[in-house]
Amino acid sequence: MKRLYNFCAGPAALPEAVLLQAQTELLDWKNHGLSVMEMSHRSAEFIEIAQQAEQNLRAILNVPENYHVLFLQGGARTQFATIPMNILQNKTRAAYVDSGHWSKHAINQAKAYCDVDVIAKIEENGLIADPKDWMVDESFAYLHYVANETIDGVEFHDSPSVAKIPLVSDMSSTLLSRPLDVSQFGLVYAGAQKNIGPAGLTIVIIRDDLIGHALPVTPKTFDYKVQVQAKSMYNTPPTFAWYLAGLVFQWIIDQGGLEKMAEINRCKAEKLYAAIDQSDFYENTVPEKLRSWMNVPFSLPQHDFLSQEFLTQAKQSGLLNLKGHVAVGGMRASLYNAVTDLAVDALIDFMQEFEKRYG
Amino acid sequence: MKRLYNFCAGPAALPEAVLLQAQTELLDWKNHGLSVMEMSHRSAEFIEIAQQAEQNLRAILNVPENYHVLFLQGGARTQFATIPMNILQNKTRAAYVDSGHWSKHAINQAKAYCDVDVIAKIEENGLIADPKDWMVDESFAYLHYVANETIDGVEFHDSPSVAKIPLVSDMSSTLLSRPLDVSQFGLVYAGAQKNIGPAGLTIVIIRDDLIGHALPVTPKTFDYKVQVQAKSMYNTPPTFAWYLAGLVFQWIIDQGGLEKMAEINRCKAEKLYAAIDQSDFYENTVPEKLRSWMNVPFSLPQHDFLSQEFLTQAKQSGLLNLKGHVAVGGMRASLYNAVTDLAVDALIDFMQEFEKRYG
Repeated sequence: MKRLYNFCAGPAALPEAVLLQAQTELLDWKNHGLSVMEMSHRSAEFIEIAQQAEQNLRAILNVPENYHVLFLQGGARTQFATIPMNILQNKTRAAYVDSGHWSKHAINQAKAYCDVDVIAKIEENGLIADPKDWMVDESFAYLHYVANETIDGVEFHDSPSVAKIPLVSDMSSTLLSRPLDVSQFGLVYAGAQKNIGPAGLTIVIIRDDLIGHALPVTPKTFDYKVQVQAKSMYNTPPTFAWYLAGLVFQWIIDQGGLEKMAEINRCKAEKLYAAIDQSDFYENTVPEKLRSWMNVPFSLPQHDFLSQEFLTQAKQSGLLNLKGHVAVGGMRASLYNAVTDLAVDALIDFMQEFEKRYG
Repeated sequence: MKRLYNFCAGPAALPEAVLLQAQTELLDWKNHGLSVMEMSHRSAEFIEIAQQAEQNLRAILNVPENYHVLFLQGGARTQFATIPMNILQNKTRAAYVDSGHWSKHAINQAKAYCDVDVIAKIEENGLIADPKDWMVDESFAYLHYVANETIDGVEFHDSPSVAKIPLVSDMSSTLLSRPLDVSQFGLVYAGAQKNIGPAGLTIVIIRDDLIGHALPVTPKTFDYKVQVQAKSMYNTPPTFAWYLAGLVFQWIIDQGGLEKMAEINRCKAEKLYAAIDQSDFYENTVPEKLRSWMNVPFSLPQHDFLSQEFLTQAKQSGLLNLKGHVAVGGMRASLYNAVTDLAVDALIDFMQEFEKRYG
């Protein structure tokens, strides 16, 4: 077995310790004679796994008691629809911030259910109104923003201060990368395949007053109240993904929690941005205060040959998945929790060597 | 490692050979230096896995070329909503057959989107009109039935002959247990966690003319046309579950395909029903022609003590998950593809020993 450095934007690298435990237990979980995958979701064994995972996630994020934690399917992209389906609360308008690729998809999907006002939009120069200046009033059912734009590498490092209406955030690629004050939000959600676990699991953290308002056309499997009452088991949940997420939560606790993860993640990102900025070869155009800790896009001098050569040689050097999203091109290094400091050092070394040869 | 006999109704037993391969490859798939879970769904490696899985499923079921195969999330229960959302085709009525627990849930969910006519219903005595006698006309958008009622142990062994409108079937607990003539259907769907793979994956096989009719309120992730065009990757699919399903499809081919699976499954079921019928102690009340090959519910003489004792002693004998669904009580042995002939023999031996002691 050899494990290479994996900078994939998602599904992303998982902690090796988590994969090793899953491997050991794959055919026989704790001497129960079967795999977690083969357990009834209603069995005492799986309920123990599920509850422990929720308890650990609540502890890591310090989730207040008046919030529910749901383990659903369908990814953040399904939430783009099911959020307006669930929390319009008889209003007809919702406020959205457009900070990049996923914001636009969220906005387009929401328009099927309500009027959407884009109250802040990222400009050509990469700037956008500061979260503290986002203005909303109570005619909006909620304010939605994407805390970290995975493709564009744009992250809001502070939360908006919107007290009047529920604040809703797609945190797919930032949740668990640093501490979060959940109490500022009405609803936080994330696809698991970045910092949480394998693809196919979606975490929704929702304040109690926001459940019970689903439109009649909402599929029952995505009615938050139905799932809250059923403890996320109205339908069969993705049990193995839930179990793996539980192993990741335990791993985060073992690492020292989110304060520690934030320290490591900030250091990894700063190191890579510094290497890019110090070079005349690589470029990241995101304004400094919006630069993502998790996803670092960068470009080489505009030569098709060089980019392809960079990817080929990187792979030969054991550095995987550095190609930028097709929507924006270039390169991208995703530095999620499971991407080690050693991996980032290896990437920087490779980039400097490559620049020497081709710069 | 010890592996016990697992009769769980779902998530259900998986073939040991599949789990062993997944275990071997868990941290490093075919020397690529990463887990399948850690691959981009857009990578050449995962696309190879995904396409091979679809190709093998198509081969196993002999899926005609004018049908699409989708790998989605949300389980059959999400399909209860997304089927009417997608295939009403400007009609306002759909015909449903009520053969048990899951039929009723499908009917209740469909009522959010259309008028539902129940054209056949299972009676107190366990009888229901024969599929060949189900009458529908073209005012219905489609006819929906549950081919195998997992909880009630009721299975239709022949398909209805409904040429005029699309025939739609929840085949969650029967798909891949025997050959199927897909061309008789407009849409066939199944949650994976029975004969296909782990929970969190849903297979939808849909005829080409039924895509492109989604209601505007349909979440895009569940718009069949959107997912057909995106090859089930409009949103990040449950990659690891898809990969495991692919291993199961290969395993079915290695066993000799669905003709062979049917032969084994029929033999397993007949053996268990014979043991129940020959006893004055155990009872299965499903009429013979409707008895499921996959799920065999049975009851003991009505003593709470005996049922609990049966489950406790069964577990001590290495026979897991024999408790019936809470909605109907009693016992249930699920005999999916991965449940071996040896497991069924061990169950019958245990039942006979138990009867001797308590009968």
